[in-house]
Order: sequence, then structure tokens, then C-alpha cells
Amino acid sequence: MQPRDTTAPPRILVINPNASRAVTDAIDAALAPLRLPGGPVLAVTDLPEGPESIATQQDADSVVLPLVRRVADDPSDAFVIACFSDPGLHAVREAARGRPVMGIAEWGILRALTLGERFGIVALSEGSVRRQRRMVRQMGVGDRYAGSRPMEARASETADAAMGPRLIAAGRALVERDGADVVVLGCAGMARHRAAVASAIGCPVIEPCQQAAAAALGAVLLQTAP
Amino acid sequence: MQPRDTTAPPRILVINPNASRAVTDAIDAALAPLRLPGGPVLAVTDLPEGPESIATQQDADSVVLPLVRRVADDPSDAFVIACFSDPGLHAVREAARGRPVMGIAEWGILRALTLGERFGIVALSEGSVRRQRRMVRQMGVGDRYAGSRPMEARASETADAAMGPRLIAAGRALVERDGADVVVLGCAGMARHRAAVASAIGCPVIEPCQQAAAAALGAVLLQTAP
Amino acid sequence: MQPRDTTAPPRILVINPNASRAVTDAIDAALAPLRLPGGPVLAVTDLPEGPESIATQQDADSVVLPLVRRVADDPSDAFVIACFSDPGLHAVREAARGRPVMGIAEWGILRALTLGERFGIVALSEGSVRRQRRMVRQMGVGDRYAGSRPMEARASETADAAMGPRLIAAGRALVERDGADVVVLGCAGMARHRAAVASAIGCPVIEPCQQAAAAALGAVLLQTAP
Amino acid sequence: MQPRDTTAPPRILVINPNASRAVTDAIDAALAPLRLPGGPVLAVTDLPEGPESIATQQDADSVVLPLVRRVADDPSDAFVIACFSDPGLHAVREAARGRPVMGIAEWGILRALTLGERFGIVALSEGSVRRQRRMVRQMGVGDRYAGSRPMEARASETADAAMGPRLIAAGRALVERDGADVVVLGCAGMARHRAAVASAIGCPVIEPCQQAAAAALGAVLLQTAP
Amino acid sequence: MQPRDTTAPPRILVINPNASRAVTDAIDAALAPLRLPGGPVLAVTDLPEGPESIATQQDADSVVLPLVRRVADDPSDAFVIACFSDPGLHAVREAARGRPVMGIAEWGILRALTLGERFGIVALSEGSVRRQRRMVRQMGVGDRYAGSRPMEARASETADAAMGPRLIAAGRALVERDGADVVVLGCAGMARHRAAVASAIGCPVIEPCQQAAAAALGAVLLQTAP
Amino acid sequence: MQPRDTTAPPRILVINPNASRAVTDAIDAALAPLRLPGGPVLAVTDLPEGPESIATQQDADSVVLPLVRRVADDPSDAFVIACFSDPGLHAVREAARGRPVMGIAEWGILRALTLGERFGIVALSEGSVRRQRRMVRQMGVGDRYAGSRPMEARASETADAAMGPRLIAAGRALVERDGADVVVLGCAGMARHRAAVASAIGCPVIEPCQQAAAAALGAVLLQTAP
Repeated sequence: MQPRDTTAPPRILVINPNASRAVTDAIDAALAPLRLPGGPVLAVTDLPEGPESIATQQDADSVVLPLVRRVADDPSDAFVIACFSDPGLHAVREAARGRPVMGIAEWGILRALTLGERFGIVALSEGSVRRQRRMVRQMGVGDRYAGSRPMEARASETADAAMGPRLIAAGRALVERDGADVVVLGCAGMARHRAAVASAIGCPVIEPCQQAAAAALGAVLLQTAP
Repeated sequence: MQPRDTTAPPRILVINPNASRAVTDAIDAALAPLRLPGGPVLAVTDLPEGPESIATQQDADSVVLPLVRRVADDPSDAFVIACFSDPGLHAVREAARGRPVMGIAEWGILRALTLGERFGIVALSEGSVRRQRRMVRQMGVGDRYAGSRPMEARASETADAAMGPRLIAAGRALVERDGADVVVLGCAGMARHRAAVASAIGCPVIEPCQQAAAAALGAVLLQTAP
Repeated sequence: MQPRDTTAPPRILVINPNASRAVTDAIDAALAPLRLPGGPVLAVTDLPEGPESIATQQDADSVVLPLVRRVADDPSDAFVIACFSDPGLHAVREAARGRPVMGIAEWGILRALTLGERFGIVALSEGSVRRQRRMVRQMGVGDRYAGSRPMEARASETADAAMGPRLIAAGRALVERDGADVVVLGCAGMARHRAAVASAIGCPVIEPCQQAAAAALGAVLLQTAP
Repeated sequence: MQPRDTTAPPRILVINPNASRAVTDAIDAALAPLRLPGGPVLAVTDLPEGPESIATQQDADSVVLPLVRRVADDPSDAFVIACFSDPGLHAVREAARGRPVMGIAEWGILRALTLGERFGIVALSEGSVRRQRRMVRQMGVGDRYAGSRPMEARASETADAAMGPRLIAAGRALVERDGADVVVLGCAGMARHRAAVASAIGCPVIEPCQQAAAAALGAVLLQTAP
Repeated sequence: MQPRDTTAPPRILVINPNASRAVTDAIDAALAPLRLPGGPVLAVTDLPEGPESIATQQDADSVVLPLVRRVADDPSDAFVIACFSDPGLHAVREAARGRPVMGIAEWGILRALTLGERFGIVALSEGSVRRQRRMVRQMGVGDRYAGSRPMEARASETADAAMGPRLIAAGRALVERDGADVVVLGCAGMARHRAAVASAIGCPVIEPCQQAAAAALGAVLLQTAP
Repeated sequence: MQPRDTTAPPRILVINPNASRAVTDAIDAALAPLRLPGGPVLAVTDLPEGPESIATQQDADSVVLPLVRRVADDPSDAFVIACFSDPGLHAVREAARGRPVMGIAEWGILRALTLGERFGIVALSEGSVRRQRRMVRQMGVGDRYAGSRPMEARASETADAAMGPRLIAAGRALVERDGADVVVLGCAGMARHRAAVASAIGCPVIEPCQQAAAAALGAVLLQTAP
């Protein structure tokens, strides 16, 4: 790993582990409010080795070693894994040797715990629902989980304008049928829909890349504390 | 509530609900790394109506209405309740009418979930241990909780240099006897001891005011997102 | 605190922390079966400082210090806090210095655990649902909780005859949609509807003031045991 | 079942399902404070078919059908099963056709939930510990359970004066090693030791027969409510 | 207990604790695939003392002592209790003195944990639902439980061809309304319907006698390991 | 994938995902009791791409894609992943297209649930303890988990005779300090120590490869059921 120039501001690398440029661009735009003059740099990148879309457990597991290598070799001060499966979160933490590594599912869910009593997740597909159930149990926050509802979309579609109504329908079902009072968008790249979904379903809606990047921002700033 | 000058940067008000000036000053110093040029303002204040130290449930409950009034009347963009009992968290959220309100226990614990598998809390006293058990259950994260260990100190003592060995002893017991692999300082004002305790006990140690203030920072920045 | 006349029978003070006289009268009537000749006295009182109805978390928190003062100054042998938010339960216990203090939500729920496998709660409003979810988690009995259903009523309305159909509708939804097999009335003052709701929905229905007062009765009697 | 004389006060039958007369007598004495002039009758009886002591799961299961027959044939208004295994609780409830049936483990534990954050149980033997773990999980209150500690005694010994030091040793281990702040005596017939154990270990100690009988008292009184 | 001829292959005794010959025959047929040449013998028997159908908790408890006696007296190497209430599982284990005793509910549920994220159970009746809720809590696997749905049948009907549509309807409700992704048949004797139900509802369906017998097969084989 | 000869008996492939031949041989020997004349074939293989020992999360994640490819290409009827991290369990299940895939941690733990009330795990190292905690939470069986105790060994050492005392020491601590009443060996290749550890610590000890292979045996036999 090449050493980082310590006179420069801290740098956070947000890695979209799929190869969809549209998703990467959408993530980049969503993080604009977190970029302060003179503050930490927030860079967003693709993972060239990643699949077009992460739909299966195999897709998610296929990006773990590329993520590990990328983080091990990169001089950034903190990392965000910008896929809602949080692929390789614990292996990447080992590779980061103490530098913060934030998962977007993890932070989308943690932020939800402070905005409502029971969170729901809008999932891309039925397969994602099953991964999310495992993740929520692994986090140990199942007592706060209202459930996940699938939209049956692919990750690369998530920035499309046409996603709006499907997001709203799934979000509404989470609130009305499952008793959610806060909803997490269960995919990267859907930030542009966040406000409209929140307005339509009448409860807070969380964009998880923003939450993980904000957490990384706090972590790099606090690392300069004595 | 007087309107805030919207041409100024966003403002976060951190309220120490006890009346100990030493604790307020220690909190203020701990938040320095989060103050960026041109970024959100982080102000720290006492609650004059608060007790000298919050040791009992009555102490904690006694500051709820003063906190509610303070937040209702204050034009800040976000608030941190800087007492590890998170007194009045949900009532203050009602009073804040949508502005973020962060509790330090809440955020100290949430951050711990990302740094280890089981968190322990160093508590001021045996009475605090019981409140923390209720709080952890209420948050729904008990499956990740190794326990709390008391130091038998008062909140106003927490910035004293003499606290170091007591913090280390309690932290070590959490790791060695209770199986914690990350420790949260269960009181405001102990930031100066954080690094030394972490070094002594060999696992991450979290200062909760820093975490709640970092979360408030992220929240106010993201509120400018479309 | 003035000393109690120990030649008199023990005295239990039931405090309705809102200022609705109709609710107080309904509670008083509901406790009649627990008054035995020569047995403990069951007195019911308003809390003059209380709001007309406890609808928000602020309402609930606003009565904590008045309850604390009332109990600290009163010579009764045991206390019941007769509001389903169990406001100030733990602070009042500190103030009671060992005398039993019973919450109606607490005891309504505990009794439910002995009458069915999964309990549901009829809530006054959506805001009460959220408080009840926190309370159930804090009690650590969430594995037995089918959920809460709101009626959108105010506490002061609860003794009205017109409440019956709304109670039955909410109770039926708890049974048929949420899988409850026992229902707790989530408010004081609804005792007159209990039997009719139970008959309509076909499962046990619990009036929580009666349960908390019965628990206080047992506690004061047992305190005379060696 | 012969009809009960409804002009008489209600009657609660407390059944000690083992055949130890010493235990039955100790239970009878422990319930004296709950007997009010003109109030419900509290009768205590052996189960002649029961074993001398209930030590194994087979012992516990062996009394279920005798308890079912006894309750089905008895005209009492409520029943207490006075063995800490709560043998046959759900079968006996079926046989009681709506009349209250209270288990002493159940009510000892429920009362503990109102006196501390984490309850411990003093068990007769290691085998009882395993049954208690199953029972606590079945009740769904495991988040409040500090654990059980065995004394290695037989039920018929429990009224002996010599039991005191063993109870205190087990109770102290529950508090000091397991983090209990309230202790339940996990056997019938130990009421005479309750106050001394509480005094020695410095936290509330619960005698479960008293709690179940008090609950039955409340239930029969409330059944006369409209 | 008469000694077993140790030159013969190990023997597993599957006990149907009700007296329905049709159910016993259906169990026997379902286990055919587990019978290997030279491998362990799988014998299936009625319990003559058992009721025609196990519908209530009293029915379930009534077979415990007969099961205990049967197992204590029988020289088989392992036992399966082939009723979905797992009656007497822990008492029979005591009586088996170390020989494996498998419950069909237990093993149907454990196998389900490996085939999906959330299991549902098709129950005979509403009363069975309540017993299943207690059993799932006692096993400590409630976080994986989607729920039970009753068919309102008697155990002796379960081998009837007419049961198919009722099984499919209940299974479909578990999947579509309760979020199950694997379904357990909550009764012995329904193996002939398993494949058709799985095909109709589109997720794995588990026949519990087969799972418990397979587990007993593994256990007796492994007992010959050094 | 080449088609399997369906006239041959079913075949179960047990894959040791590390490259230690000693571990593979130890697994092979441990499965001998499950090989019946004419019954399913149990083959054990290395994963040549695997590391010498799986000690870190990166080690575990590094074998997922090789396991996926191996299983996708292999005509066996069922698979066992013979590493206690259960690496890639869900991705491999996708790749197996309906053929059973069993994890050894999963089945070691499930079998433990039938032999005691609280299971403990002997772990290779402190790092394994953390992975086990995540795995137990993900399985949703944390209410039955007494904890893990590390031996600080490498997987390739596990078949050494010298491991015996370290296994016994860790097992004893699980029983005496953590309250376990059944212990799972948290690594493949330790079967030769199982009986001695069980004898030394006085409770059942489970070898997880045997349990997963037994489960696979049952699954392939039952797939021939109608």
C-alpha cells in the first residue's frame, strides 16, 4: 500500500462493488452534501471485477476477495462498501488494519433504529429478502425488524425514474401491512427517490449510502482526536 | 422559537443536562475534531435547571421537561442530549418537530455494534447499571450486550485524572469476565481517558458524546440533500 | 411524609395521572371487587397537575415529577400508577423507599402472559402504539407480543359508551390479523367495556387497573408475613 | 364435579403435588397473610398420588394426570399448583374450564420482573436448573434471566432450618457472579427462610407460593366484577 | 429391560403415541427409504394406552408415563416419539438412560432451519397452534418462526386423501401471509401429501417423522464410533 | 456437470476447504461408522485452492468461490462443507441447485440443541470466537448459546494428540464458568478426541463433521421417498 499524503485532508473511498456506472454516479451524487470545503474527500469508485448487478448470494460472495485486495492496497483513511448485502464486511475490516470500514446495510439499519420503533426494508428481489433476514439476525436487531418487501428489480435499474412507483408500493406495504414506521432503501443508487417515497408513505425513509458515508466522515474526523 | 439565520452554517446544540461546568468543558473539548471550517457549528451548553450529577432515575427524569422546553425554544438545527441516560429522548424528539435529536447512549451503543461482537458499558454506579439494562432492552440490542460494570463515581468526577485506573479496571472486567470486545464509556466527560483505556484493555473504546455529535453532523449535512 | 396510623388497615393509593374526573371515577368503580371488609383500603385520586389526557411522550413525562412528589409525601402502603404509559414507574419506585409501586401496563401485560400465548394491546392512538412497543421491549417480553392496534381516541373519552364498538374492532383485528389470543385494554377507565369486548372477540380481555390493584393488594398483605 | 355453595366466600385450592406433609404445612403457613375475614378461603392440600419429592422430569410429569383429575372434580373457584416445575399447568387449565389456575414458578418469576432487572432462581438441584431453563424460555422472559444455581437438596428438606445457609450461598452467587438483582426461591416450602436470605444477600427475595396464591386471590375477587 | 442381541443390527423404535392404526401405517411407509440392507432396523409401533387422537394438552400429557414405561422396558437402541407435540420428550430421555430419543417436532423444525430463513407449521387445530408456540419458544428458535396455521382436523384423519387441499391452503397462507419460506407438516402420518404440498406452494415441505427417524439413524450409527 | 450413474448408490461429497491432508484424513476416519454396505458413498476431499488453515474471516471467504465451482461441477447427490466457519454455505446452496448442502457448524449446533439446554463451542482461536458469535446469531439460536472458548490452535494441529488437554481445558471452562451442558468441537478433524473430552468434562461432546454427514445421509436417503 502506498502511503497517504498526511498533509492532505482525510480520504474516504466508497466502493460500489458492482460494475454499473449508473449506480456509481447515483451514489456519487447522493454524497454531495457530505463534502465540506477543506473537509474529508469522499471518492466513489466501481469495482471493475464486480458483476453487473448483485442479485444472488454468489454475486455477493464473488466480490469479497476483490474488495479485500482493493482495500488492502488503497491508502484511503476509511471505506464504505456500497452494496446492501454488505459483502465481505468482516473480511475487509481485517484487511483495513484498523481503518474504519462501513457497510451501507449496517448503517442504514442503525440510523433507522433512531427514527422509528420498527424498520422495514425495500428489497430488490425475493432473494435479497432472504439475505436481509440473515443479516438482520446476524446484527442482533431482529426485535426492531418489521420485514422486507421485494420490488423484483435489478440493482442496475435502481436509478431509473420508473423505480419510484415500485418503491412507493413496497414502502407502503411495509408500513400498512407489516407495521414499519421507518423504511430503509435496500439498495445503493436510489437516493433520488428517497424524498418522494417518504412523502408518499408518510414516514422517514433512509438512503443507506448517505448514512454509511456520514458515519465514515465522523470516524475519520474523530481519529484525529487525542 | 426565534428563526435561525439560514445564511449561517447549520448549528448543532449539545446539551449537558447536569449543571457540572467541568463536564460541559470536557464535552466541548472532545468535540473539537468535528468542527470544520465553514461546517456546522457545534455548541455545548449546560442545562441550568439540571442537578449537579445524574445518579438516580429521579435525577434523569427531572431534566426531561427542561430539555423539552430548551429544545422547543432553540433555533438550532439538531440536538445532542449529552447524558448517558438519554433522558427524555423521545419527548425531546416530539418537541424538536422533525429536527434530529441524538442520544449519547444510543449512538455510543450503535457505533459499538460496528466495532465488535459484544459491547460492554462502564457505568458510573450500580444504579446506572440497572438503567442501562433497561435502555439496552428498550433499544432491542440485548443480544449484543456483554453487560455493564460500575465504577461507583459521580458524573462530576468523570473528568478527573484519577478516574483513569477505575475506568481501566471496569473495562478490563468487561473484557475478561463478561466477554466484551468493545467498550462504551457510560458517561459524558470522560473523553480524555478514552485512548488510555483502549490501550490498556486491548479493544476499541467509544466516547459516546463524540459519536452522537458525529451522527448529528451527518444528519444536518444530509438534510440539505434534495 | 406523615406517618400512617398502623392500627388501621393497609392503604393502597391508585393515582390517575391525568386530570379527567370521569376516568378517575371509572377506575374507582372498577376496583370495587377488590375491597374486602377489614381488608386494605383502595383509594383512587386524580393528579391535579396532570394533563387532561396523556397522548404524547411529553404528556407522559410531564407527570413524573408530580407523581414522585405525591408518592414521597403520601403515607400509603402501596401505589398504583393508573396510566397505561406507566409514567415514571422507576423514579416513583425510588421515591417510595421500598413500598410497592405497580404500573398498570406492567401488570396488565404480566397477567396476559398467564392467559394466552400472545397478547395484543388496544391502544388509544398511533402514538401510544409506539410507546407500547418501547415498553414491551423494555420489559423483555416481546416474544409474547402480537402487537398493538390503535383506536384513535383520547383518554378522557375512554369511559364513553361509544367506545365499545371501537374497542371491539381493534380487539378483533389483534386476534384475527395479528394472532393474539389474549387482549389488554391499553388505557385506564375502560373497565365497563371489558366483558362485552371479551364476549365479542372470543378471548380473554384484561382491564389493567384491576390487575395492578390486585397485585398491590397481594403485596401489602404479604408485607405482614414474617 | 359437585357444585360449590355460592353463598359461601370463594375458595382457592392450593395443591402441593408431592406427598410431603412438611412441605404442605410450610405452604399453608406461608399463605396466612392472604386470609382475610370474610374473604376467599385458601385451602392447601397434598396430592396423595404424588412422589415424596419432585426431582426429575419424570417426577414432574407423573403428577399431571392426578392434578387434572383433582381439579376437574373439585368445586373450588381457583387453583394453585404449588411445585416450582409448574407440572401440568396447561393441561390443568384445560381441565379447569375457565377457572383460574396459577403456577408458582410462573408467578414467582412474573413478580420478580417488577422488583429488579434480572432475576435469578435458587434451584433444588442441577436437574431442576435444566427444567428451569426450559421453563424460562417457554415463558419468553429469557432476556430478564440471570440464571439458576442449584443447592442439591430434595424438596422434602426445604423446610428444614439447615437449608438457610445453602439458600444464602446460592442466592449470593446469583447476585455476585450472575448479576441477578432479585432472587426467586425455586421450590415450595421455603417461605420461612425468605426474609433471612433477602437480608443476607441484599436484594428482594420472592417466595413463589405466596405470589401465586396472591394472584389467585386477585383473580377470584375480580371474577365477581361485572 | 431385556438385553438386546448385540450381534443383530441396531434397532430404532418409532412410537406413535396415539392408537390410530392408520397413522402408524402411514408412518411406517414414510420411513421405508431409511431402511438399508444390513442397516439399523426401524420398527414402528402404536402405544395401546394412547388416545385415538392427540388434540389437547391433556391428550399429550396422558401418554407421557406410558411412553416412559415403554422406553424403559424396551431394548431398542434409539427411540422416536412420533407425535408433533413431542409428548414427554425430556422425561423419556431420562428413562432412556443415554440412548437417543428424538422428537418429531424437534427434528422437523431443526431440519427446517437448514432449508429456509423462516419456517411455518401446518397445525391440526387452533389448540395445536398454541402448543406449537410454546414449543418453539422452549426450543429457543422463535426468531426463525413465521407462525402456525390450523387445518381443524383430527390426527386420525391425517392420512386421508381429502387432507391434501386443506394442507395446501394452510401452507399457502404460511408462505403468502406469514412470510414462511419452508413449511413443516405439524402432525405424523401426512407423508403421502408432502410432495404435492411442496409443489403447490413452491417451497420445501418437511415431513417430521422422516427427519426424526433419519436423526435416530445417524445417532445409532455414530454410537459405534470410537 | 457430468451426470451421475443413477444405478450406483447415492454419493455424498465431504469437502475439507483447507489444504491440510491430516485434517482430511481425520475427517474421513470419523465418518467410517456412517458407511453402510450398499448405502450411500461418503467421499472426503481436500479443496486444493484452500489455505493451510482457516483462521481469519479472509481465509474463510477465500474458499467460497472454489467451493461454489467444485459443487457446481460435481455430480454428487449431497455435500458437506467441513469447516466450522461454514464458509459459503448459502452461495454453495445456490450452486447445488436443490441438492442438499450441509454445514458442520450448523449441524453440530442443531444436534447440540437436542442433547442439552445450553451449548458451548470449543474454538480454535479468539478470532474464531467472534465468527462463531456472528454465526450463532445468524442461525437465531443465541438463546441456547453458553459461549465459545478459544484454544489458540491452528486447524492443521487439530488432529494432534497434544490437543487433548487443551480441548478438555476449554470444554471444562464452558461447563463450569459459562453454564454449558453440551459442548461442540468447533473445528473439523478433532473426532479422535471426542470421547475423551466427554468423559473428562462429564457432558455430551459433539463432533460436527459426523453430524453434518449423518444429516446428509438422511437427506439423500429421503430424496428417494415418493
